[in-house]
Amino acid sequence: MAKQNAFYAQSGGVTSVINASACGVIETARKHSDQIGTVFAGRNGILGALTEELIDTSALSDETVKQLRHTPGGAFGSCRYKLKDIETHRTQYERLIEVFKAHNIGYFFYNGGNDSADTCLKIAQLAESMNHPLKAVHIPKTVDNDLPVTDNCPGFGSVAKYIAVSTREAALDIESMCATSTKVFILEVMGRHAGWIAGAGGLAGQGEGEAPHLIIFPEIPFDRATVMARVDDCVKKYGYCVIVISEGARYADGTFLADAGTTDAFGHKQLGGVAPTLAGMVKQDLGYKYHWAVADYLQRSARHLASATDVAQAYAVGEAGVKLALEGKNSVMPTIVRTSDTPYRWEIGEACLSDIANVEKFMPRDYITPDGFGISEAGREYFEPLIQGEDYPPYEKGMPVYIQLKHQLAEKKLPDFQP
Amino acid sequence: MAKQNAFYAQSGGVTSVINASACGVIETARKHSDQIGTVFAGRNGILGALTEELIDTSALSDETVKQLRHTPGGAFGSCRYKLKDIETHRTQYERLIEVFKAHNIGYFFYNGGNDSADTCLKIAQLAESMNHPLKAVHIPKTVDNDLPVTDNCPGFGSVAKYIAVSTREAALDIESMCATSTKVFILEVMGRHAGWIAGAGGLAGQGEGEAPHLIIFPEIPFDRATVMARVDDCVKKYGYCVIVISEGARYADGTFLADAGTTDAFGHKQLGGVAPTLAGMVKQDLGYKYHWAVADYLQRSARHLASATDVAQAYAVGEAGVKLALEGKNSVMPTIVRTSDTPYRWEIGEACLSDIANVEKFMPRDYITPDGFGISEAGREYFEPLIQGEDYPPYEKGMPVYIQLKHQLAEKKLPDFQP
Repeated sequence: MAKQNAFYAQSGGVTSVINASACGVIETARKHSDQIGTVFAGRNGILGALTEELIDTSALSDETVKQLRHTPGGAFGSCRYKLKDIETHRTQYERLIEVFKAHNIGYFFYNGGNDSADTCLKIAQLAESMNHPLKAVHIPKTVDNDLPVTDNCPGFGSVAKYIAVSTREAALDIESMCATSTKVFILEVMGRHAGWIAGAGGLAGQGEGEAPHLIIFPEIPFDRATVMARVDDCVKKYGYCVIVISEGARYADGTFLADAGTTDAFGHKQLGGVAPTLAGMVKQDLGYKYHWAVADYLQRSARHLASATDVAQAYAVGEAGVKLALEGKNSVMPTIVRTSDTPYRWEIGEACLSDIANVEKFMPRDYITPDGFGISEAGREYFEPLIQGEDYPPYEKGMPVYIQLKHQLAEKKLPDFQP
Repeated sequence: MAKQNAFYAQSGGVTSVINASACGVIETARKHSDQIGTVFAGRNGILGALTEELIDTSALSDETVKQLRHTPGGAFGSCRYKLKDIETHRTQYERLIEVFKAHNIGYFFYNGGNDSADTCLKIAQLAESMNHPLKAVHIPKTVDNDLPVTDNCPGFGSVAKYIAVSTREAALDIESMCATSTKVFILEVMGRHAGWIAGAGGLAGQGEGEAPHLIIFPEIPFDRATVMARVDDCVKKYGYCVIVISEGARYADGTFLADAGTTDAFGHKQLGGVAPTLAGMVKQDLGYKYHWAVADYLQRSARHLASATDVAQAYAVGEAGVKLALEGKNSVMPTIVRTSDTPYRWEIGEACLSDIANVEKFMPRDYITPDGFGISEAGREYFEPLIQGEDYPPYEKGMPVYIQLKHQLAEKKLPDFQP
């Protein structure tokens, strides 16, 4: 097969390890320079392909590429631009293929979640029909951990570790002070649709009475009276109560707590954060002194506390993506296959994109305790290996050394295009 | 001098390194077992002395004590119980001295901030007058960094590092996505009275255009129009804007933003968090997509990201406190003296409690840039050394190993007392 160039793009919300996947792609492509020419990266994801803003990664030194492994965020830019079905967005899809043709791009590596798996598949199909066969490989990435087939998604393990560690640390703080000060602490975590991240918070404690005392999952309908009774019991029994709540917590009718017009601790209508909403209930119903935290982007960018397992897997799916393409595979995604729980062992597998696209993986009910407020042994067995190991970035003057790339764009060959 | 016992208590809000000071006190006392008998620790701080709940630290193995150095929170419990002037609280003060007498306590180590420095001084004075001379030493601790005389306070350097690192990490996330998603990110940090912690966030960036683009200090009166204009300029120039805001941000008339009855992003009255309040302004005035985070207790318990300098200083003031007492000093506090900026060098000094008690140290105006939204070179020179070095806790199964003590109480010798 004649040597062709590659296109790599980051898609959707970034993670603290998505650049490790980019590192895996670029380093592996460089090892196969007989088959892969230049790796172009889309500036701001797939938008960069549409606008023909192709970052020429061959301008990056090996040393610079290596530093991507420990740098959070999306080094080439990502985007939330969604390509819908081919009928709606035919002009866009065709433009992509034109850009790929113009730059002799025969390999397409798309690094994202559900939506991008679908886009990746569609592009592969259209390329075929437009007589520009492409090896299109989806590289999994999402803190939401909701891709099917793969045991877990790169990006999730590090958020899980951050939430578990932060919960344990904050719990020690509250426990120290609860005799005379804060009795209830609420940490809001990401996960609009599923409680994977909230569940990981359960790793903060091991035994009876250890924080978090309550996890509030989107999967379990929120009942104010039940939750408040649990909080009250917990404060009476242990002196304090630590709650991890998913931003997706909702009532039985599906209304999100954060959108439900509840009032905050001061009696005012409260929106935009589930933690202050729940804090308001604690104040109104129980009167306990409370504090709340919203980790927001901190949780998915905390590379300083990345899981070494997660980093290794993020790199491995990038590397495997290139290898699959070189084997002539198309419309596939490397997966993480768990081969043993204890000791934890994993290897790279392979899935067809048609089995991935538009399929959302939910957390099994049996990962949650029967009462709905904690993680079960099965859940713990699933989560625990994913946060194993530390992978610290280098530091200089007390700060982590994160690389910020100077983007050198390839010369444009096509007329301008308005996405 | 006859051998006497010691009493150690943690006071006020805990930090990620207050236990390192406890470790310094106990280890140093053990090295001088010819002069110091048992080190008792107050269960929940000074309350434990009032209720005669004295934790017998001699029951702790050397290995356990060593682990205090890397454990956040207050291992013996702290409290927000404030002893006022002697006239108001004479019964309480006298009770303390009775307890000290009953347990042959001749050394008093009080680990806290402004209030506890004052209490420590009063106890020393009363002990003298009650014919139970005490060597009373205040060990500095506060994330607020507002104790006078000392160059900085143990506890502050680690919060500073956490905020600087988190800001840099979140900024990389937002920068990646700003073309199509969030344009403004707001991180709320502690500091009700002074902008020390917010200022430390300035270490996240070095040059023109690097985040944080705006720091909002309590010291600089908040003017909505000015701030919104800055945010708008920043988004137009760099594509995104990262803001670090102190919980103590206030208007010219002294009203806190968080209490000012402003409306949130959804047009509802908003209280209880300055970050969502500011987010509401961004939405109303500029219409940009925003995200906000409130670090709350996470920032002061994040031992996983402690500053090695801070840990070393926290330990050193504990150690020095014991040594001062053994030298016969009374009503003093060990201080941190900066002897050189570059390279950073420090040593332990000594201050009279009468110079510490009830004096609050504010941030010099010249640490803030003339425009009021950043840190100056003088500020950077002050902050930078304090976050130097990493001091990671040990990990097991992906989680930091933090010690939780089993408290063994000394036998009571006095009648019950209701504080």
